[in-house]
Amino acid sequence: MKVEKISELTTNRLSIYLRCLKELSASGIATTSSDDLAKRFHLNSAQIRKDLAYFGEFGVRGVGYYVETLREQLTNILGLNKDHRICIIGSGRMGTALADYYEYSQTNFSVVALFDTDKSKIGQKLGNAIIYDINKFAEIVEKEGIDVAVIAVPAQFAQGILDLVASVGIKAVMNFAPIPLKTDENIKIRTVDLTISLESLSYFLAQPLGENGKIMKPNGKKSRLKKKK
Amino acid sequence: MKVEKISELTTNRLSIYLRCLKELSASGIATTSSDDLAKRFHLNSAQIRKDLAYFGEFGVRGVGYYVETLREQLTNILGLNKDHRICIIGSGRMGTALADYYEYSQTNFSVVALFDTDKSKIGQKLGNAIIYDINKFAEIVEKEGIDVAVIAVPAQFAQGILDLVASVGIKAVMNFAPIPLKTDENIKIRTVDLTISLESLSYFLAQPLGENGKIMKPNGKKSRLKKKK
Repeated sequence: MKVEKISELTTNRLSIYLRCLKELSASGIATTSSDDLAKRFHLNSAQIRKDLAYFGEFGVRGVGYYVETLREQLTNILGLNKDHRICIIGSGRMGTALADYYEYSQTNFSVVALFDTDKSKIGQKLGNAIIYDINKFAEIVEKEGIDVAVIAVPAQFAQGILDLVASVGIKAVMNFAPIPLKTDENIKIRTVDLTISLESLSYFLAQPLGENGKIMKPNGKKSRLKKKK
Repeated sequence: MKVEKISELTTNRLSIYLRCLKELSASGIATTSSDDLAKRFHLNSAQIRKDLAYFGEFGVRGVGYYVETLREQLTNILGLNKDHRICIIGSGRMGTALADYYEYSQTNFSVVALFDTDKSKIGQKLGNAIIYDINKFAEIVEKEGIDVAVIAVPAQFAQGILDLVASVGIKAVMNFAPIPLKTDENIKIRTVDLTISLESLSYFLAQPLGENGKIMKPNGKKSRLKKKK
């Protein structure tokens, strides 16, 4: 469990570093360093060095990192040099919003199919994807070579859908239904709980402002947040 | 920056503990412990103790935690005993999907308004919220007592919208536009990047299976993930 969580946070940070490198590349900058990255993008330089060291030796003495080389290496580590084909199960507002989002984002993930039970929706096109009958799930997954499933159905149907997804051999799942799901440990599930982010904003709003408008930490230390002048 | 991040991860975990306590409470369980919580919900007991210790002394010697008491304490720490009023800016697929999601989730956050520039949408109702003209933003925010803004507009408009949000004194923002935004450090922004979760699944799919079907870690250690039997 712990090993898993660490690697999830690490890979999330690698994704962020990759975004930063793309930005540097677009600005024509050829070399950088952990300190430079940290300064430009408000990251932690020691954390950058630690995260990268986990995967190998990328720095060049006296230079730092070559932007294009590191970008390519991170792309490979994250498996972003390989295309993945996504299906979205549930073509309600969340499902269609996600189809838009991923099409716009232009990653190596293409949404190739949506699934629904609503006969009036089946056959419609959404971007490059078609909405299929959920009864044809196994057939379409095989035909389209789908390897990632996104669950965007109401909470009460989500576990049943996950069982269906697992039964056809899909190994990577994103779950947008607001409940935790159970499955084999050989399937990687990311449950995206959008209320957790809200609750953390709630925590922030609940903090009393101390002297000088600084937010007081429960241990008595002041955070760096300042009151608006 | 670092202090901020730690508290973000910590508050996210507190949200998770709170969900677990609600489940125990619903099952009629009156007392628990960090070990019991860890076992039931696949958490880390040392982490639970550390996270809770940061906010005070909640355990009772010989008992552990009283479920209802701890639940109430976490609710108060997270500020979830206070209602918040949300607006969603952008009433496209993402904005309306989020309005549904938050209405369904029944948290202490109520979506009271959406904003758009599309005249054909203005005046429509969505659940308990009305879609307003973005030109009336400051007026409606004041009238409705809105304290949290959710940005769900296309990327190219997101920074302008954030500036508008900041100008009316809103301090907590969730951003669903797929770009980083800049603002005063006294405003708390959560950018929810849905492609980062996908990239982490990509990492998982890219890992070679070693002997016995175990995923090989780059440092040569085997993770606990097992191949399907």
